Amino acid sequence: MQYVKIKDAIVEQIETGMLSPRQKLPAERKLAESFDTTRVTLREALSLLEADGRIYREDRRGWFISPTPLCYDPSLPLNFATMATTQNRKPQTQLLAAKNTIANKQATQQLQLPPFSDVIRIDRVRYLEERPVAYVTHYVRPTVCPNLLDFDLNGSLTDIYRDHFGVQYQKVHYRMSTSSILGETAQALRATSGTPAMMIERITYDDNNERIDYSVECWRHDAIRVESMVELRNADPASR
Amino acid sequence: MQYVKIKDAIVEQIETGMLSPRQKLPAERKLAESFDTTRVTLREALSLLEADGRIYREDRRGWFISPTPLCYDPSLPLNFATMATTQNRKPQTQLLAAKNTIANKQATQQLQLPPFSDVIRIDRVRYLEERPVAYVTHYVRPTVCPNLLDFDLNGSLTDIYRDHFGVQYQKVHYRMSTSSILGETAQALRATSGTPAMMIERITYDDNNERIDYSVECWRHDAIRVESMVELRNADPASR
Repeated sequence: MQYVKIKDAIVEQIETGMLSPRQKLPAERKLAESFDTTRVTLREALSLLEADGRIYREDRRGWFISPTPLCYDPSLPLNFATMATTQNRKPQTQLLAAKNTIANKQATQQLQLPPFSDVIRIDRVRYLEERPVAYVTHYVRPTVCPNLLDFDLNGSLTDIYRDHFGVQYQKVHYRMSTSSILGETAQALRATSGTPAMMIERITYDDNNERIDYSVECWRHDAIRVESMVELRNADPASR
Repeated sequence: MQYVKIKDAIVEQIETGMLSPRQKLPAERKLAESFDTTRVTLREALSLLEADGRIYREDRRGWFISPTPLCYDPSLPLNFATMATTQNRKPQTQLLAAKNTIANKQATQQLQLPPFSDVIRIDRVRYLEERPVAYVTHYVRPTVCPNLLDFDLNGSLTDIYRDHFGVQYQKVHYRMSTSSILGETAQALRATSGTPAMMIERITYDDNNERIDYSVECWRHDAIRVESMVELRNADPASR
């Protein structure tokens, strides 16, 4: 099929370095001309490249070559800034909103709160090299960190938990699924509505097995690759 | 936006049980009529529902309501049949092809083989309740299981490794990313080309730290949810 050939041609240009990360692609009209194809076929090729995480679209700005995805290891103590800098990336976190509020349905369930409980909700955007890559919402149990809102929330929450409240993550329950980016989240990530997303939900526990916080991370799917080494220590022959 | 409202209406019908898993949706024309909308808007709604894993399309057959996704825990000893039956699902594995062949680039790299090495390549499809959900390719080092092709490969490879070659997984290195389903893989999964995929790559190691096999699983993204509990035992304060 012609659009697969166009896709392969662009992949080759990326792999040989003719197109470099964050480079803007020519306008769709020009690209269609240079591949001697229609815009419909070109869009099918671009859509495959987007699905494969090779290119991404910024709303109203056009298509760009995706940088190497950030390698995300759920088995390591989690701190976005450290994870990024050890991979030679330039991380930044921007606080959008932080408030005490009544827990919504999701937070109530995931933190096992009684109905109408208070929760601290923090909305932030994660950047890599000034590109917004993830929209992150934290729901924190206020009993864990009562005056959390007095701190600078543009940095690591984990650091604040540990340094000011003596609370450390001991266990993380995570879930990963694919979805799409919509509405305000899309706006904050400069994405067009419907862009593919990798969703990571995490419930963290302290050393008393109490839940600390529940977070929902909506990643631009091309910006992240989950990778980990797992030891199968408790290999129970009966369950194999 | 109207298509978001249509999406929400269909989600509600799923959550209240008016639409049940594996049920076929009415034809697009009929759906558009009943929501008093155009087919373009309806397709945008369906596309969002597909991205969220709520519905899936079978090539030439139409749209269906997605069953609950299979919960996939990479930290457990991995055996598709056991994983599925403990979740009250009906698993089946179908062998498509198995042969000795020269390792391709991917297999050579991931198994760290010398150039032009032999490898055993096994292509299979995983089913849940007779729906094809994953296309799985294994590349096995022939030194580990010399006459592997003599066995029935419609069952668990892990079981054959263990029972006939005394080889057990000790460690698994996995990677997860999103992509799309194309060509022959799409055909085997009864998917239209370009359907969203969750890709899981795994390199397995035995107790001598030797690589056993490398596998690539291409899942229909709505059929799977990755979920695990991780203990942060080696939390090194310097790396936080």
